Amino acid sequence: MGTLRDLVVATRDAARTLANADAATRTVGLEALAARIRESAQTLRDANEIDLKNAEAAGLAPAMIDRLRLTPKVIEQMAVGALQVAALRDPVGEVVDVGVRPNGLRVKKMRIPLGVVLVIYESRPNVTVDAAALCIKSGNAVVLRGGKEAFESNRALAAIIGDSLQAAGLPRAAATFVPTPDRDALADLLTFDELIDVVIPRGGEGLIQFVTERSRIPVLRHAKGVCHVFIDKDADLAMALEICYNSKVERPGVCNACETVLVHKEVAEAFLPAFFGKLSRARVTFRADSRARALVPAMDAAATDDFGREFLALTVAVAVVDDLDAAIAHIARYGSNHTESIVTRNESTARRFQREVASSLVAWNASTRFNDGFELGLGAEIGISTTKLHAFGPMGVSELTAQKWVVDGDGQVRE
Amino acid sequence: MGTLRDLVVATRDAARTLANADAATRTVGLEALAARIRESAQTLRDANEIDLKNAEAAGLAPAMIDRLRLTPKVIEQMAVGALQVAALRDPVGEVVDVGVRPNGLRVKKMRIPLGVVLVIYESRPNVTVDAAALCIKSGNAVVLRGGKEAFESNRALAAIIGDSLQAAGLPRAAATFVPTPDRDALADLLTFDELIDVVIPRGGEGLIQFVTERSRIPVLRHAKGVCHVFIDKDADLAMALEICYNSKVERPGVCNACETVLVHKEVAEAFLPAFFGKLSRARVTFRADSRARALVPAMDAAATDDFGREFLALTVAVAVVDDLDAAIAHIARYGSNHTESIVTRNESTARRFQREVASSLVAWNASTRFNDGFELGLGAEIGISTTKLHAFGPMGVSELTAQKWVVDGDGQVRE
Repeated sequence: MGTLRDLVVATRDAARTLANADAATRTVGLEALAARIRESAQTLRDANEIDLKNAEAAGLAPAMIDRLRLTPKVIEQMAVGALQVAALRDPVGEVVDVGVRPNGLRVKKMRIPLGVVLVIYESRPNVTVDAAALCIKSGNAVVLRGGKEAFESNRALAAIIGDSLQAAGLPRAAATFVPTPDRDALADLLTFDELIDVVIPRGGEGLIQFVTERSRIPVLRHAKGVCHVFIDKDADLAMALEICYNSKVERPGVCNACETVLVHKEVAEAFLPAFFGKLSRARVTFRADSRARALVPAMDAAATDDFGREFLALTVAVAVVDDLDAAIAHIARYGSNHTESIVTRNESTARRFQREVASSLVAWNASTRFNDGFELGLGAEIGISTTKLHAFGPMGVSELTAQKWVVDGDGQVRE
Repeated sequence: MGTLRDLVVATRDAARTLANADAATRTVGLEALAARIRESAQTLRDANEIDLKNAEAAGLAPAMIDRLRLTPKVIEQMAVGALQVAALRDPVGEVVDVGVRPNGLRVKKMRIPLGVVLVIYESRPNVTVDAAALCIKSGNAVVLRGGKEAFESNRALAAIIGDSLQAAGLPRAAATFVPTPDRDALADLLTFDELIDVVIPRGGEGLIQFVTERSRIPVLRHAKGVCHVFIDKDADLAMALEICYNSKVERPGVCNACETVLVHKEVAEAFLPAFFGKLSRARVTFRADSRARALVPAMDAAATDDFGREFLALTVAVAVVDDLDAAIAHIARYGSNHTESIVTRNESTARRFQREVASSLVAWNASTRFNDGFELGLGAEIGISTTKLHAFGPMGVSELTAQKWVVDGDGQVRE
């Protein structure tokens, strides 16, 4: 076996072949992947069993072990996911006319793959398939670097991905599995800026920070979501209650779940008791500022760092604010540019909130949970970017491409 | 005076004000800037005189000193440049309809400023004005970090920019000049990833590398241009000659000038002598491979590193290639993803070249010199990106914005 660099050089070479393969060939590869995942269920479960045993021996928390487990349902979901990605519209080669210049040059833009994508992820082995499928669909070669807990599962999945590419006549090296889970190897990978075009880290804050500090390669960050719902004075309070409930309770462990509810002072007295009642029946706990506690003393007092905190749990911070400006200022100070929602009947208030809040999605009268590739019509996503560069919000197959300029002339030269 | 971090915190706060200012106010600021540059010509020349004296005392090369000089012409060009930027279409707030989802959610995308842009540049003081104007137009606050040679000139220009912002009722801190030219301060700035949204380094390879290695902030790189012209077997050779001449000779010191000419073997004998004749009369020197020298022995032999080299001078590398595939492979190996051009009468050959060459601009029958914001209709540019992320090619005001999702509902929640 060669060095890590040799592996990535081979990936780089394979990237050119993959980028120039036609859409049908890439689709065949993804369909082969779905079929092979189903056929290899037992092989995958055997590999997964090793990871599970190691995890138990290492004393991992049951919730962590649960994330690792390749159940028949998870395996079938991976196969279905690969087919869903195969069925997406192909972004590669898409041409947009820009126009004709005064000198007669015909200017267009064409979508091309980014090249080589390094995906770094933690415990869930299904990310191996999801990420590879999105990269293959968008014509990108991928370097897969999963967490050590899922190492055997990831290796087995990567072998299946390689087989599927080969079956479609594509180079195996277009999906390269990093054969070591240690951080030194990761640190090395992050210096290969002449071989890798973009890094997508998916995981906890520690991983994101490690990658941000070390990488010479551009990073598309899927960072934390500290999402806010603001209940304006002109809100339909029944609607506000449903939106808060859905944003907080439906799936509290995800990045687009609500972490803080801000309530306009003029409706706080009418809203907060019902809010407290409905959410506490769903076993939500509260971290409230003094103005909110003055109205509902049963809520716990917020600590200084509860605003701006991603609880990822059935806990919500609550504050009463003076007006729209105070809500926008609170979000600018404590938010993470992920998702915010305003509930109001007043369109001009909503428009100002949507204009001035610089988050990747700003909703009016809707749950924060809609910041999601499927919900917005992109199909599967490789993450939700909270940095404004390149992609802001869900990243689907289009976000894994670039646009180059294509110019047709008749011998034009510059004066 | 506070610390460097205090300055950038103030810039961050000013960014919100600037982003929410209306287009007319930002335009007033830019018009004030043009007027003040003209009024302050003497002040600027006095400041510049200090830099010029220091540069002479330090023994800088005459070409470097020339770049530093604020002549009346350069000063007038800065004023005109600010007015041109003021007249560009405003990208901020632009809304694109994406569609209505099955659940009735109305989905749009809205352009917003990136936030705070750190521009790092070297000798030319006019970059202070050009970069600030583009940032102000696109609603971004800017941190300006120029080279030490132009320190006094840059400081004087930055004061004028601050005055102009203030005259328009905008915060002075929306354009912040880094009051120290040392690299330690720059290294610190590059760790302020919670305050700065993007770094744009403009300068030599040493600077770009320093920034790439140190920055925790996303970098938009304007890196080197190793641009190729490929003369296909079906080329109009007279057209090919004009395109090579213009691409190489018109302005050899810029990034979109041609560095290497590749000639199909079937036309090499017909093309190379005329090529040699015309370009050598313009005092071009040649670095040719053995196949080219076999046809025109008067050309110097290329050294191993002459392919892939950015001469930025009246020097051109020349190679004879077997076919289109060999030309594409040569560019993939030695190119810098900047600009390439094919000369051919055969449309399908041109289309394959344009599809398979992954450069920011791929021209057919046109000079490489057209990879430029003005020539492509973007107006002024802050650089030409050779990384595929966010922007690939010229970066104008639109490329200094992001698109966020804006979603309008009627109380939708996620099932």
